[in-house]
Amino acid sequence: MAQQHLDPTAAPVPAEALAGYLRAQATEFLRALRQHRETGAGTAASEGSAEAARALRRAARRISASLHTFQPVLDPEWSETMRPELAWVSGTLALEHAYAARLEQLLLALHRLSGAAPLPVPARAVGTHPPATPDPAAPADGTPSAARHTTAPGTAPKAPASGATGPAPVHASAADGPPAVTAAGTAPADPAPAAGTAPGRAVAADDGLRGASRRAAATASVAAPARAGTRTAARATGGATAQATRAAGVSAPGAVGAPDRGNLTVGAAKAGALLDRQLTLARTRAHSTALQALGSSRFHGIADKVAVLASEVPLTPAAADTDLRPLAEAARERLVDAVAALPLLTAGSPYNAAALIHGLSPDPSPHPQDAPWHQVRLLLRLHRYAREVLLATTGQAPPADTRLLGAGEALDRHRDASEAAGAAAQAARTPRIAPATAYALGVLHADQRHEVEAARYAFQRCWQKEAIGMP
Amino acid sequence: MAQQHLDPTAAPVPAEALAGYLRAQATEFLRALRQHRETGAGTAASEGSAEAARALRRAARRISASLHTFQPVLDPEWSETMRPELAWVSGTLALEHAYAARLEQLLLALHRLSGAAPLPVPARAVGTHPPATPDPAAPADGTPSAARHTTAPGTAPKAPASGATGPAPVHASAADGPPAVTAAGTAPADPAPAAGTAPGRAVAADDGLRGASRRAAATASVAAPARAGTRTAARATGGATAQATRAAGVSAPGAVGAPDRGNLTVGAAKAGALLDRQLTLARTRAHSTALQALGSSRFHGIADKVAVLASEVPLTPAAADTDLRPLAEAARERLVDAVAALPLLTAGSPYNAAALIHGLSPDPSPHPQDAPWHQVRLLLRLHRYAREVLLATTGQAPPADTRLLGAGEALDRHRDASEAAGAAAQAARTPRIAPATAYALGVLHADQRHEVEAARYAFQRCWQKEAIGMP
Repeated sequence: MAQQHLDPTAAPVPAEALAGYLRAQATEFLRALRQHRETGAGTAASEGSAEAARALRRAARRISASLHTFQPVLDPEWSETMRPELAWVSGTLALEHAYAARLEQLLLALHRLSGAAPLPVPARAVGTHPPATPDPAAPADGTPSAARHTTAPGTAPKAPASGATGPAPVHASAADGPPAVTAAGTAPADPAPAAGTAPGRAVAADDGLRGASRRAAATASVAAPARAGTRTAARATGGATAQATRAAGVSAPGAVGAPDRGNLTVGAAKAGALLDRQLTLARTRAHSTALQALGSSRFHGIADKVAVLASEVPLTPAAADTDLRPLAEAARERLVDAVAALPLLTAGSPYNAAALIHGLSPDPSPHPQDAPWHQVRLLLRLHRYAREVLLATTGQAPPADTRLLGAGEALDRHRDASEAAGAAAQAARTPRIAPATAYALGVLHADQRHEVEAARYAFQRCWQKEAIGMP
Repeated sequence: MAQQHLDPTAAPVPAEALAGYLRAQATEFLRALRQHRETGAGTAASEGSAEAARALRRAARRISASLHTFQPVLDPEWSETMRPELAWVSGTLALEHAYAARLEQLLLALHRLSGAAPLPVPARAVGTHPPATPDPAAPADGTPSAARHTTAPGTAPKAPASGATGPAPVHASAADGPPAVTAAGTAPADPAPAAGTAPGRAVAADDGLRGASRRAAATASVAAPARAGTRTAARATGGATAQATRAAGVSAPGAVGAPDRGNLTVGAAKAGALLDRQLTLARTRAHSTALQALGSSRFHGIADKVAVLASEVPLTPAAADTDLRPLAEAARERLVDAVAALPLLTAGSPYNAAALIHGLSPDPSPHPQDAPWHQVRLLLRLHRYAREVLLATTGQAPPADTRLLGAGEALDRHRDASEAAGAAAQAARTPRIAPATAYALGVLHADQRHEVEAARYAFQRCWQKEAIGMP
């Protein structure tokens, strides 16, 4: 049993441990929500608000998982109402980050596949600031902070139909724009890292600049002020970058010093631009959906319930005499059973080429072979949170189980690669794309499916170690 | 040292061992040449003639390699003249088989990637019989045997410009055609395996039948007799199959019972048809080039020299006192040095994703990272043949070194996948192909590059075992 693995002599864990855990997570939820509102969840988002959104999701997931695992000791009607609501919150808030991370993963892969030098970027940078494009559907409560938290205009204005995606200013603004404003979307105001915080856009800039530097400059000069709309800071920067780009003219690619642009084929560049367009659009939509959700009465109802939970956990009358350990053990057994059903023998044999089977199947639905792995990922998370509940009785932070973490990371990597491969395949179904673009997307899709296979191999390795430690 | 590894107490190996080995290989060369002429090397080729061509290449490679490794004991002028000539013979004869094998590998991969059921075929079936299309440039000496060795008409008549490649008769003839003639190109006359002996064509048939069964039927009825030319047997079969296809009409795909046609996307089907067209053309050209080469005065000159070699090996005067072992050891050291320069640490780490770097590079030349591996493949072969020379003194067949064989097979697999990936990339550069075709070729290219990576991993595993056994 999981808790025996932790401490074989441990006493029964009372339901009060769960109550304490739920109160703590509810408090964390409310703290994150307050921080999210303070750091500007409106039209622009800062590093702080992204961090707050992550904390909000983290707490929501933990509360929801605990309601599931420890359902017998909780008021059934209450937990039946809460769980789908919390799942809606974490699901809605997760989408924007997921699209940003997917785009980053695909653009980095395109660069790797082109033999280009790896970009000197922090891995998660793109995911931390949403597109600054003002969305008319977004609630207005974030607008006052927009001037403070405007992201670099070079990263924001998109020209969805131009093909060049017009992100030329990202380089130009790094070189010529006011650094403080350019880097407003990211924590440090240092101009050099600011340019590096948007690898996806840098790639797209390369793409756009390849054969269309004139057009990109024109797009920037027109689109940037137009998109900047009511935000004067953004407009000023947009003008400056547009001027800088215009001054650079045809020699813009050289002037902005893109180090590896020459290594991107036309196909890879176009594929990158297409993915950028599609995933940025999805991300922008997810952003405004999340903002709408956070401003909705449904969300306020949830927040109210969580506020009550922070002080009062609705346990059943019989909960006082219940040991939580068998419930946690049941969660662990569900995980173990699901893992046992996985094709681990295949996964443990390198280069089994299993993940790319059906790679050219006409069925556009998600890869059916991935579903059991995604399911194990969720069950692993339930198991991990159940452990946290049991360990919370010790009064100290639960010790990190590196093996569980490793297995979880492998499954995250599996999920990300699976969805990135799907996005590449989806982009390839865009009508009227060039054959070179489609070819690059095919290579990219296969590359990500092999990443899926690699993640399964990594999980299998982690799990074998894990299985030794577990009775 | 290699020979110490075999027998640490072995005495010096005299040059006479090399003379005996060369005489035996020369005799084998002449035997294979005679067999090749007897089994019909003309417009059509049989299993026997393909086997004879392989034996011819094998002997030529061994003689050429021995001239290289043991150069100091051989008449320098003579060996300088012989080596490029023998390389020309084996190189020219290898091409046809290489194109056939490449096509087979790519079509099987397309099927695998489409999640289609694996085809129940002997792995080397396609490679054993060249296209039966009469080539006007081919010498006429094979014509008498054409009636005997006509390959299945369904596998032969190509409609290069139609896109449907017109191979519908391959199924129809299996069901309705005279089995004896249909299966003439393959050893057993059983109709069921006869249909299975051409997996590549079966794929192409699926392709053609998908949306164009009427057109395929029309092509068959027109093209088959036209292509069959002077061969009455082929013409009769062509007519029969055309009729059968016509009778089946639009329901032909169902009627011929293709088991997995539905699983091939349009893109995969078109990619298969494109590769079939391009590689079959290359193979046909290689076939007639080989026939021309075998009929050339240059080849007759080589054959005459090999005939002399079969009885008289031109050793240097000093050869009598020379030990062959240091020369063989030098060959082994060249191999070991070249292997040491390979990135084996990377290759030994599964899913290193190194082989697909530059996968989208705009440079159409062969992958530069593959060259050192190809070089090791050649050096391994030189080492293996040098061992054969030393072991030939024992008077018995050299014992198979399974580890050397395993390493060699991994490098063959590496070479094949590298060239198959190149062929897919090359096909994707065909002008005016559909995006779906290009996408499928991209997936196929990446798949084969991962096969390259898998082969390097396999080599590394073999070599580590090998290194333990070697001092």
